[in-house]
Amino acid sequence: MDIATLREKHPDHWMRAAAVRMLAVDAVQAANSGHPGMPMGMADVATVLFSKHLKFDPKAPNWYDRDRFVLSAGHGSMLLYALLHLTGYEDMTIEQIRNFRQWGAITAGHPEYGHATGIETTTGPLGQGIATAVGMAMAEEALRARYGRKMQDHYTYVIAGDGCLMEGVSHEAIGLAGMQRLGKLIVLWDNNNISIDGEISLSDVTDQRKRFAAAGWQVLACDGHDPEDIDRAIGEAKLSKKPTLIDCKTHIGLGSAVQDSPKAHGSPLGADNIEKLRQTYGWSAAPFEIPADIATWWAGIGARGAEDRKAWEARFGELSEQRQKEITRVFEGTAPRRLSATIKALKKQISDEGPKVATRKSSEMVLEVVNPIMPETIGGSADLTGSNNTKTGDLGIFDPSNRKGRYVHFGIREHGMAAAMNGMALHGGIRPYGGTFMAFVDYARGAMRLSALMGIPTVYVMTHDSIGLGEDGPTHQPVEHLAICRATPNSWTFRPCDTVETAEAWELALTSEKTPSVLALSRQNLPTLRREHRNKNLTAQGAYVLAEAEGKRQAILIATGSEVEIAMAAREVLQEAGIGTRVVSMPSMELFAAQDESYRRKVLPAGPVRVGIEAALRDGGWDRWLLGERGREAKAGFVGMESFGASAPAPRLYEEFGITAEKVVEKVKALLG
Amino acid sequence: MDIATLREKHPDHWMRAAAVRMLAVDAVQAANSGHPGMPMGMADVATVLFSKHLKFDPKAPNWYDRDRFVLSAGHGSMLLYALLHLTGYEDMTIEQIRNFRQWGAITAGHPEYGHATGIETTTGPLGQGIATAVGMAMAEEALRARYGRKMQDHYTYVIAGDGCLMEGVSHEAIGLAGMQRLGKLIVLWDNNNISIDGEISLSDVTDQRKRFAAAGWQVLACDGHDPEDIDRAIGEAKLSKKPTLIDCKTHIGLGSAVQDSPKAHGSPLGADNIEKLRQTYGWSAAPFEIPADIATWWAGIGARGAEDRKAWEARFGELSEQRQKEITRVFEGTAPRRLSATIKALKKQISDEGPKVATRKSSEMVLEVVNPIMPETIGGSADLTGSNNTKTGDLGIFDPSNRKGRYVHFGIREHGMAAAMNGMALHGGIRPYGGTFMAFVDYARGAMRLSALMGIPTVYVMTHDSIGLGEDGPTHQPVEHLAICRATPNSWTFRPCDTVETAEAWELALTSEKTPSVLALSRQNLPTLRREHRNKNLTAQGAYVLAEAEGKRQAILIATGSEVEIAMAAREVLQEAGIGTRVVSMPSMELFAAQDESYRRKVLPAGPVRVGIEAALRDGGWDRWLLGERGREAKAGFVGMESFGASAPAPRLYEEFGITAEKVVEKVKALLG
Repeated sequence: MDIATLREKHPDHWMRAAAVRMLAVDAVQAANSGHPGMPMGMADVATVLFSKHLKFDPKAPNWYDRDRFVLSAGHGSMLLYALLHLTGYEDMTIEQIRNFRQWGAITAGHPEYGHATGIETTTGPLGQGIATAVGMAMAEEALRARYGRKMQDHYTYVIAGDGCLMEGVSHEAIGLAGMQRLGKLIVLWDNNNISIDGEISLSDVTDQRKRFAAAGWQVLACDGHDPEDIDRAIGEAKLSKKPTLIDCKTHIGLGSAVQDSPKAHGSPLGADNIEKLRQTYGWSAAPFEIPADIATWWAGIGARGAEDRKAWEARFGELSEQRQKEITRVFEGTAPRRLSATIKALKKQISDEGPKVATRKSSEMVLEVVNPIMPETIGGSADLTGSNNTKTGDLGIFDPSNRKGRYVHFGIREHGMAAAMNGMALHGGIRPYGGTFMAFVDYARGAMRLSALMGIPTVYVMTHDSIGLGEDGPTHQPVEHLAICRATPNSWTFRPCDTVETAEAWELALTSEKTPSVLALSRQNLPTLRREHRNKNLTAQGAYVLAEAEGKRQAILIATGSEVEIAMAAREVLQEAGIGTRVVSMPSMELFAAQDESYRRKVLPAGPVRVGIEAALRDGGWDRWLLGERGREAKAGFVGMESFGASAPAPRLYEEFGITAEKVVEKVKALLG
Repeated sequence: MDIATLREKHPDHWMRAAAVRMLAVDAVQAANSGHPGMPMGMADVATVLFSKHLKFDPKAPNWYDRDRFVLSAGHGSMLLYALLHLTGYEDMTIEQIRNFRQWGAITAGHPEYGHATGIETTTGPLGQGIATAVGMAMAEEALRARYGRKMQDHYTYVIAGDGCLMEGVSHEAIGLAGMQRLGKLIVLWDNNNISIDGEISLSDVTDQRKRFAAAGWQVLACDGHDPEDIDRAIGEAKLSKKPTLIDCKTHIGLGSAVQDSPKAHGSPLGADNIEKLRQTYGWSAAPFEIPADIATWWAGIGARGAEDRKAWEARFGELSEQRQKEITRVFEGTAPRRLSATIKALKKQISDEGPKVATRKSSEMVLEVVNPIMPETIGGSADLTGSNNTKTGDLGIFDPSNRKGRYVHFGIREHGMAAAMNGMALHGGIRPYGGTFMAFVDYARGAMRLSALMGIPTVYVMTHDSIGLGEDGPTHQPVEHLAICRATPNSWTFRPCDTVETAEAWELALTSEKTPSVLALSRQNLPTLRREHRNKNLTAQGAYVLAEAEGKRQAILIATGSEVEIAMAAREVLQEAGIGTRVVSMPSMELFAAQDESYRRKVLPAGPVRVGIEAALRDGGWDRWLLGERGREAKAGFVGMESFGASAPAPRLYEEFGITAEKVVEKVKALLG
């Protein structure tokens, strides 16, 4: 690449983009760690995007109608940090950039949502950004339909690299976006032909342009170092009714000794190379210094959005008070006041009537009363609507012909669904939930982990949560998935035992502000065990005494979900044998762990033998409660799975794997010696 | 679809295919569970494939050079079972088919590898079959290059549905196959336009033909109910130098009341509908009965392959004894005798020299001595070759121009890599290993679980196994992934503390016959802690005493991987303070759990306080060892992670998260009171 020509042709642009490049290069060098090549390659595209197209206001970084910008190639984080600094995001000081990748800095190795304003989502695991952006664009479409173009009318831009496009999740994402005709989604592909191992041709021959076209996208191309050509392409993309891929031909590590080489990807360039680079770029300022004229120009770019934002605020002010309140409420993620009363009323009705239904059906019963009072919910399923019971009567289908629809047929795309839900939650205005089989946590894990890491309240409706699904067999029977979910920090795993607990779990999921929820729900019918109505949300305590021992308390049975019924049956036998037995229902280990110690001791006092019952592996966090948090608390046993499942009708499986009241009784008696 | 026309046009074919259809329909009805629609739709394609193209011999189901057939749309398992029964696989009796989906039957809901001969891989989680088949086709190419066309020269056929093609893993698979130009891979796409939620257009507009062409595939099409057209298409596909997609236009639930409807997918048709279907099909035989002429014809198809197989055996017999032994050895998955001595020699050298290297580097040192003596290894990485240290000097790159190469640039395709490795292991003749970052277990989980469920020795080289990776931050730092791997039944998770343990772990992984291995390896340098050479593989015991207490044993420190060094440092301080401290290195919890109780008690005797040390969450199986298997054994604590990580240099992270010798000492002293 002839840098001299680039400099000559667009001298002003060159220096503005060089500011971005040099901040990235110098920050990586100072950290002695990081990825300079991508910011160097994409600085021209980003400069044009931010200066000529992106609608944003650093003084109001959470303005609801801003354009969303997602750096899917998250390793190029310095590109984003440099842009945020130059355009005037107040928290992104030059000190933060100097402290790139250091303890306590907001400038993490990969962009972390919540660390700095202007970071719309956490990226780094490749492909997540583009898949998350699909959800953002869906949210924009839904909210534009609901609140009108004056309130919502923005684009979602993504910078994605070859790695993002090779990941499987990108396939699910672009398929979903193509079908949904997300015309305001624009992906700028950093087509530099280099991955870590070498040239892309080492591992891929895919014609990405044809691939995206096959998925229903508009495909454009530009010279990623020619600002006019970039501007033209983005302008054209904005007019499309389909999502657009812009193939931006770029050079990784532009102008450096390692240009067009994998060496530019993930290591500092080194002092000598940087010295030469300064000359090549015509950049004489010291590290972390930006010449005044360039700084001023960038500040002007940052200041420009205020006008749009203020106009938007004026329009917002013209709305009815009620509409203003609703918009604010849904964007702030606050549940409506009525939710609590609605849940209580349902609980009372259920306790009175005592239906015997699968908890996946219970979940549907909850959604039937919740969806009408929460216009912000968007539900869906990865092609298991009838099995996940995620669709309620009034939702309508969200698709290009009906943007007011609130139910999404995500297709057979568990990972894409999870990431899109994250995108909706991050966008704001939407509270997403989506269903698949619990075993397919495996397929969605990449995005599920990000829900937890980012601290957003995505809701995963995971039905068929054990061998109770029966004949479909071990590929579809989760045994380790409760362990996986419970081991994930900052997430709630609910395994409710009946409709009342399911309602309580949903209430917690729908009022959560910073924690995602997994609802593990049964395929098989379960009796209503909570027959005495309590206004209080007992599930919020994580575990509670469902049935107290009569007589001397000799045993405590701890169970979750479909196995609480078994615990209750075992208790009956034990009580008849004169063994006082308490049953503890434990719908959420995480929430129980969060209670104060006195409550935990009250529920699980030292002394009586303990038996845990769950149709899953003991690895799922059981030892802490069985062996005692402080050790030396109780003799304990576990009735559950010790292997993968098998294919047979569910009752037979419970018998064969020994998850029965009889086995529980045996275990208690053996422990009591 | 006009069935009468189909029947008239190809009356013999019709009845042969009807035998397959009716077995499926009747078995699903008898089980009152299952998926009739897909076998009904694909019976014509399968009949043509098995009768005119597939090279197989039911009397020698593991014949090395058979064609591989993968039913990626695994819910249509009855299609496969019917074919296996009709062609004479001895274990697939009519009783087994009558017992479809029942306890103890080999006819599970989805095809389970190892249950019945002729099942080449477990399928059901969509997309896994096609992605696994890519590995089988790669194995065939590699073995054909190594042993010649007379020994290896077969096709790999896949039946895949719309669901398989929507899953992200299919993108990784077809990208890999396209780049590798796997001309002997043929995918028959059951293009029936229906998924569970309804018509495909509800969720997808992808032009699959264009998509596959964009990935470097040949694309053909046929009428999936016209045997001549199917035959033509398969014949053409076999001539291709690229992998081939055949778009088979079919009708789900052909000829039934629910044809072309999602209702045909996953429920029995019902007695009335089946009665009508028998008339429509012209099939008068009772359920599970096959008219003699049709049975004879199918038996003839099954018998046909014996000739090919015997010819192959004759060719095999002409090989040198040494070559015969090697081929048998690699297909049986037996490690070479020299492996043990090679590992011992390396261990001795390392114990003598005591290098300080990252265990990812240790792993490379092991591979440098192992790869030359194990021609069956094929290694690779998901675009992190230099970081995973998976490539040794002599391997050469496996690609279309060099099929003798043994290193695969899998691209940024963790899931596709894992599935392809499964395919190679299943194919036989290859022992695959592949690397990525430990955090990307998330991306590969779908296939990793199948390695364990199928019981095949795929090896996952997972480097950068903790916050020790430093600046890349929490997206790249595993904290829950050891928990995930350890919670997976039938898998070994190794976290070696130095090069000696790494060599021992590799020896176990490379001699494993039925268990996959995860090697969790450090980014950061670690000292050699095993300085006294022992011939015995101590890692095989899962845990062992690395350093004994001097004086009265008051504390036991249990640690894994990079934290064993910290345990040793803490021991030194504790001993100086007069506190006798044992250090237990626990490279594999699974293998320790598999030891007899007396050994476990010897390593972890009741009494001394215990502190576990691991830069990961306590959820990863720690409570069992800390609190005591029987409870009441010891006072215990844990020094590790309690949250996601952060972005900073590794030493700072260890300090900030409190994973230091000082904290261990404090914890021990506090427990001793």
